[in-house]
Amino acid sequence: MLNRLKYLLVGSPLPSRMLAEKKLNKVRALAAFSPDALSSLAYANQEIFLGLVVAGASGLSLQFPIALAITLLLGVVALSYSQTIHGYPSGGGSYTVARENLGLYPGLVAGAALLLDYILTAAVSLTAGVAAIASAFPELWPYRIWLALGLLLIITLLNLRGLRESGTAMAVPVYLFLFSFMGMLAYGLVRAVLQGTPAPLASVAPSAVTPLGLFLVMHAFSAGCTALTGVEAISNGVTAFRPPAWENARKTLVVMAFLMGFLFLGSIGLTQFFGVVAGPGETILSALAHHLLGTGPLYYLVQFATLAVLAVAANTSFAGFPRVTAILAQDRFMPRQLFNLGDRLVFHNGILLLSGLTAVLIILFKGESHALVPLFAVGAFSAFTLSQAGMVVHWFRLKDRGWMLKSFINGLGALVTGTTLVVIGISKFLEGAWISVLVIPVEVFLCKKVEHHYKMVSGQISMHGLPPSLRRFPSPRVVLPVSGIHRGMVHAVNFARSISNNVTALFVDLDGGAEKGSFLRDWETWFPDVTLVVVEAPYRSLVEPLLTFLEKTDAEHNDGQQAVLVLPELIPASGWQEVLHNQSAAEIKKALLYQRRAGLQRVIIDVPYHLEG
Amino acid sequence: MLNRLKYLLVGSPLPSRMLAEKKLNKVRALAAFSPDALSSLAYANQEIFLGLVVAGASGLSLQFPIALAITLLLGVVALSYSQTIHGYPSGGGSYTVARENLGLYPGLVAGAALLLDYILTAAVSLTAGVAAIASAFPELWPYRIWLALGLLLIITLLNLRGLRESGTAMAVPVYLFLFSFMGMLAYGLVRAVLQGTPAPLASVAPSAVTPLGLFLVMHAFSAGCTALTGVEAISNGVTAFRPPAWENARKTLVVMAFLMGFLFLGSIGLTQFFGVVAGPGETILSALAHHLLGTGPLYYLVQFATLAVLAVAANTSFAGFPRVTAILAQDRFMPRQLFNLGDRLVFHNGILLLSGLTAVLIILFKGESHALVPLFAVGAFSAFTLSQAGMVVHWFRLKDRGWMLKSFINGLGALVTGTTLVVIGISKFLEGAWISVLVIPVEVFLCKKVEHHYKMVSGQISMHGLPPSLRRFPSPRVVLPVSGIHRGMVHAVNFARSISNNVTALFVDLDGGAEKGSFLRDWETWFPDVTLVVVEAPYRSLVEPLLTFLEKTDAEHNDGQQAVLVLPELIPASGWQEVLHNQSAAEIKKALLYQRRAGLQRVIIDVPYHLEG
Repeated sequence: MLNRLKYLLVGSPLPSRMLAEKKLNKVRALAAFSPDALSSLAYANQEIFLGLVVAGASGLSLQFPIALAITLLLGVVALSYSQTIHGYPSGGGSYTVARENLGLYPGLVAGAALLLDYILTAAVSLTAGVAAIASAFPELWPYRIWLALGLLLIITLLNLRGLRESGTAMAVPVYLFLFSFMGMLAYGLVRAVLQGTPAPLASVAPSAVTPLGLFLVMHAFSAGCTALTGVEAISNGVTAFRPPAWENARKTLVVMAFLMGFLFLGSIGLTQFFGVVAGPGETILSALAHHLLGTGPLYYLVQFATLAVLAVAANTSFAGFPRVTAILAQDRFMPRQLFNLGDRLVFHNGILLLSGLTAVLIILFKGESHALVPLFAVGAFSAFTLSQAGMVVHWFRLKDRGWMLKSFINGLGALVTGTTLVVIGISKFLEGAWISVLVIPVEVFLCKKVEHHYKMVSGQISMHGLPPSLRRFPSPRVVLPVSGIHRGMVHAVNFARSISNNVTALFVDLDGGAEKGSFLRDWETWFPDVTLVVVEAPYRSLVEPLLTFLEKTDAEHNDGQQAVLVLPELIPASGWQEVLHNQSAAEIKKALLYQRRAGLQRVIIDVPYHLEG
Repeated sequence: MLNRLKYLLVGSPLPSRMLAEKKLNKVRALAAFSPDALSSLAYANQEIFLGLVVAGASGLSLQFPIALAITLLLGVVALSYSQTIHGYPSGGGSYTVARENLGLYPGLVAGAALLLDYILTAAVSLTAGVAAIASAFPELWPYRIWLALGLLLIITLLNLRGLRESGTAMAVPVYLFLFSFMGMLAYGLVRAVLQGTPAPLASVAPSAVTPLGLFLVMHAFSAGCTALTGVEAISNGVTAFRPPAWENARKTLVVMAFLMGFLFLGSIGLTQFFGVVAGPGETILSALAHHLLGTGPLYYLVQFATLAVLAVAANTSFAGFPRVTAILAQDRFMPRQLFNLGDRLVFHNGILLLSGLTAVLIILFKGESHALVPLFAVGAFSAFTLSQAGMVVHWFRLKDRGWMLKSFINGLGALVTGTTLVVIGISKFLEGAWISVLVIPVEVFLCKKVEHHYKMVSGQISMHGLPPSLRRFPSPRVVLPVSGIHRGMVHAVNFARSISNNVTALFVDLDGGAEKGSFLRDWETWFPDVTLVVVEAPYRSLVEPLLTFLEKTDAEHNDGQQAVLVLPELIPASGWQEVLHNQSAAEIKKALLYQRRAGLQRVIIDVPYHLEG
């Protein structure tokens, strides 16, 4: 039944041979990898506006210059990544590039930063999208956490179905957003040209509450840099493209960068030109749309498209995060199951992990994207910087045609993103950047810890040093705790006798002899040839007398072997009935688990007896 | 480590022989069993006041008459229960009495009602206590759910330590409450006598918003009947008293009933005499204390004593609930483990169950006692009525000296509590009584369901019909899924060979042959004498090919036996590392559990290999 529900939701299993067919063409790849980058303007514009409006008209007059600086940064970063795609056609995530060229720890820092960033992308996009639609329909406001979690669930299911399908599902909203926004901006440009002179900001802007200073500008610039998040997604996913993969990926990146620049500069430019100012309870993008489109259906279309593209932006993380965790798992820095391809040929464990962590963030930050944004840029710019610094080293080592230009471009990229990272780290530290600064080293530490464990285990279980002819175990001694005589017990006794000639039944006397007599008689009747030992239980617990007996009998036999425990287990027909059975077996196993952790390797055998109805 | 924490919190285990020493003397028993009954006035007074104040001065003038009627009811119920204690010296809970005399279903209804009532007592007492102290210190108000849950935790731990200790811990607050309240009431009586004429209610009462009618009076009376909850606690716990148990219990009951009557009548009488009226945000008891004691330390002492006794009242449930569930478990209506005496000679599972359910109620009803009170009286009065009707039958059957008087008293008790139950059911139905009316049959249904299951199982596993000489199993066929060659696998292969001469290793080829060649060579080197079978896994899952192979091999051998599965298991030194290992074993076991539910009884043997560090 559970399996059928699973198939209904995510589709039936796909055979491995279908793996090659699940590649994306450019149109679908743009939809799958660009929405994070494209939709960033929804929160970047808002953060720039909020950062500058406190300085009044003179602050707001800096919107466009700051947007211009960020767009230049975008150009450098995109150029830089287009080289990464060329240099690493098999998929050059920041982790891979930084690790191969800069060493283990920079690689892990880049990987950790990237993972954090993917989670934040999902959380910020979903909450910002819900906020966009909730500002158009205020009655949705109280339910925004639930709406964000609902969207998260839908996206998770789509991704569990597989990448091709999610490419299709995601393409519609992405192109809806692109066309509706480009249409609005084009219309706005025409109106701006007709109007000629910009609106005087001084007459609309609220009066300044803070003087315009360097820190304030840095602050607004840092916040606006979230516009760049997502630019790296394509370079991590080159292998998802149809061949020739790296060329298709590069073309897609260039198209995406131009679209990003146009949307970002256009929207901020028009906002400043028309002197649009947003009051509380409205985003600056919504205010711009109101100004240009009034309150008719077109306004609602734009708000809906914003929600849609932000929801889809969360999907970028679902395309990227599981790939990075799979690579980390392959390198043994993460649990192995993150590398397993699921039924539908996707890294389902990575998808589920991302979904769970995103849900936690949404709940912890109460569905408010504004609270999450400050954590955001640190991860992205750490990964940018390390990845591009790695590319510089890469070209230096390779020294192929044009390596000096290539390394100059990547070097420039590393320099500007590194500088931006420092600016962000300083100006946003207290607002939340400190969380990212704290979490990334913790992630690195955990990765090293996991790797250390796997290395240690593989040393411990290696066959190295074992003699070629292996010592075989003798037939085991079996101990069977008995509490009553019933068919389940008969089964267990029979099984014990089928695997060994040395079976001891152990009766733990829990109630001070009340039932001992009749039990001994019955035992003699049914199993006259099985040795029965009786021990006392002054504390009414089965466990301690049993453990004591096992230790004693192992010590007495002194054959280097540990007695095997056989436990009868009644299997009820349905799950809820479990609570009515087998409590002592569970208790015994729990106690032995502690002992096993401490070095005992006793085998415990459950012998099931099936109950009906 | 966990064990050490447990010992620190609840004390080290006690041997069974200490059971007899854990009995209570009368002073301690009063503290253990009476606080629910005594403290009921904290919410009963409040509910009477709130029920009547809507009818203005003429409503409030009925406070004392209604209190008088309830006190008469209390007298009848107490008299009735004193006969129960005599008739059932081994502990006559409503369940026992109703079941023995009226039959199975009335007994189960009484038991279910009682259990519900215990949970509500705990929840209402804790929330009302926190509300009392929060009206003295308003800054605590936002934390009242946490405060209630904190108190619940403390009481749970005290009860897990054992009854005698909790008797001691609880005695101080109970007697503090008794002496401070009796002092206040005595002082109030003196002042009333000196004053002579009662205050005119018309000048202080708010104007009526509802006309004074029969339904309003019934409503206030029903709400006030919560004052009686807890009166039955002693009769359920007779065995906890020092011998002569039933005499000590009866004396304690009489003392308790007189104290209850005095406190209840005294406080309501003074409230009406002095014309005390409470505004919003203050309880009527707090208003009375303010009137009599001003705002000095004595007022705070009374409020604190109210909190303390209500907290302790929750403890009455902890004395009663686990006893009733233990009796029900002994009769197989509840899971068996509720009858197990824990390390500290208490029914620890019952205590934990009560604590969990109370926490759920506190959270669901957001810590508001007023919302819980309407659910409350239905359970108590159902149990009262059934128990006393049962006693009538008891005396009729016994026909010992004075049986006619005895059955008349219990009959009167049954009649008045039954009538009250109908009044409560009607007047409080929509406010919450419907929940109790719904929950009690559900509880009865579940009890019958559990009993049915246990009966069915005991039929299925009974030895009845088995031939006296049992068929022995032949040595099992063993199947061992192998994924790689390491020391853990060596261990598993050796164990498999030690229990059987028929071992088949099964290699499931997950990656389409990439690792197959080298694996086959290595296997031949290390285990030349163990048959190895290779199967394909087109869907990259171990489970289906394994299940298919098992079915096939069982069908081929056709010996009525199911092959035994041996799985190597790496045991990490600490728990967090579990997530890094044994995922395929877990997957196999999960898949087989479904099969086992459907009737397969295959034995699965984990062979542990211990990892260090």
